[in-house]
Amino acid sequence: MKSELISNNKSFGGWHQQWRHTSDDLHCTMRFAIYLPPQTEEGEQVPVLYWLSGLTCTDENFMQKAGAHRIAAELGIAIVAPDTSPRGDDVPDDPNLAYDLGLGAGFYVNATEPPWHRHYQMYDYVVDELPTLIEAQFPVTQQRAIAGHSMGGHGALVIALRNPLRYSSVSAFSPISHPTDSPWGRKAFSNYLGPDDGVVWQQYDACELLALSTPHLPVLVDQGTADEYLSEQLKPGALLKAAEQAKYPISLRMQPDYDHSYYFIASFIEDHLRFHAQYFSA
Amino acid sequence: MKSELISNNKSFGGWHQQWRHTSDDLHCTMRFAIYLPPQTEEGEQVPVLYWLSGLTCTDENFMQKAGAHRIAAELGIAIVAPDTSPRGDDVPDDPNLAYDLGLGAGFYVNATEPPWHRHYQMYDYVVDELPTLIEAQFPVTQQRAIAGHSMGGHGALVIALRNPLRYSSVSAFSPISHPTDSPWGRKAFSNYLGPDDGVVWQQYDACELLALSTPHLPVLVDQGTADEYLSEQLKPGALLKAAEQAKYPISLRMQPDYDHSYYFIASFIEDHLRFHAQYFSA
Repeated sequence: MKSELISNNKSFGGWHQQWRHTSDDLHCTMRFAIYLPPQTEEGEQVPVLYWLSGLTCTDENFMQKAGAHRIAAELGIAIVAPDTSPRGDDVPDDPNLAYDLGLGAGFYVNATEPPWHRHYQMYDYVVDELPTLIEAQFPVTQQRAIAGHSMGGHGALVIALRNPLRYSSVSAFSPISHPTDSPWGRKAFSNYLGPDDGVVWQQYDACELLALSTPHLPVLVDQGTADEYLSEQLKPGALLKAAEQAKYPISLRMQPDYDHSYYFIASFIEDHLRFHAQYFSA
Repeated sequence: MKSELISNNKSFGGWHQQWRHTSDDLHCTMRFAIYLPPQTEEGEQVPVLYWLSGLTCTDENFMQKAGAHRIAAELGIAIVAPDTSPRGDDVPDDPNLAYDLGLGAGFYVNATEPPWHRHYQMYDYVVDELPTLIEAQFPVTQQRAIAGHSMGGHGALVIALRNPLRYSSVSAFSPISHPTDSPWGRKAFSNYLGPDDGVVWQQYDACELLALSTPHLPVLVDQGTADEYLSEQLKPGALLKAAEQAKYPISLRMQPDYDHSYYFIASFIEDHLRFHAQYFSA
């Protein structure tokens, strides 16, 4: 897990860095980005927000477009952005090169099916391997929050609901809330996990997990009403209904006229960082 | 100059839009972006900041990466980002496809030399044609400021110094301050303007224009000390020396450890917007 610095930019008094390392879980070389707020230069250890991106993204999209560094610098929070799938010439991709399967589309699951299962172990990578590396190598505490967008919103909700003792809070923008009832989710799960047997898929569906997850975590979800994927793929209504049935309190905000883009994320990322900061300091 | 809306994203309560139009100056179809702050939905007319981007950019880089919408929304400022060169199959490019000549590298000059002169009239486009369109079509006042990065910082300084009655203030990040003494500038000017005769090139060099420009405008320049192009291409020292000789007051801030990237721009764009806002309201 030795890692190598590949870029380093001063940003809002702190540092944005990209690192390359060999992942044991994914059997390939991975890149991730970290934002280290200015407090870390003064010897302070800071909590970490893990950010999971959506389809087609890398570690770069959030760091370049969300405008999060400003608030992370103010609040003293590190942000870690992993890639969205394993990468490299040895890693299988969709034969049709579809944007929603294979490279850039790991869906944060542990694949069980060939040809995916050797490399597509993104769940374990995000839950265990990456935080272990981050906590060994950077000036951070073991306080963690997790957030994401679209496919990454799905990943954040699933990972937090399955590991509520590892995170203090979770938030999502435009998550794929009910992947077992979404064309994106069903395509990915069929390939990575095999046919739906009513058990394996459910472990990766936030709507199914809400009833089983304890203790409850603070959950914030923002969803734009002009999102082009709203009714077919994202289904925030299913999430709200599942939360009500499970008596799991979540905050779901429908934001008028906002779409699926990073302009939406940038508009509300400050709220999300302040939300997570509350529970770090508790 | 009829224009067509090609994208529209809600952002910080206002709208980010991309438009396509036929440019008479450039003899091609051009795209530009505009950020309209929320005040314009309430019937208010707002001043405009023109943003000129650097080599290889389009209208998108600043809008996606600078984090400027938040402050523009607060202050009630529209932002217009043109492309960095004429575009299209009829527009000549560098035969070697170099990043610093031809497409994406218009240098905000009016080319006089073949094959460039028919399309590469970016100076006139930014000074006249685009503001005329913007002021006819959008809810804006005739108060204008101009800013830019690198090649666009050069463009902003040159355009403001040659047209001090058209702008209320000018700012730049990492500008090519003295293009007639910079490899980027000399290559571009040789191609677009012909050999240096001591007259034509000077019209596009901020260091030469400072002594001639009146009335004086408020000028703010930010330059990172870790900028990889600092000493060979950008030469802020030449700008400072020329300003002192011309008795033209400018504010040049050297920012420790910042580089040439958009992380640098994002870190200080709030200062620039507040700087321009002061002079709009005067």
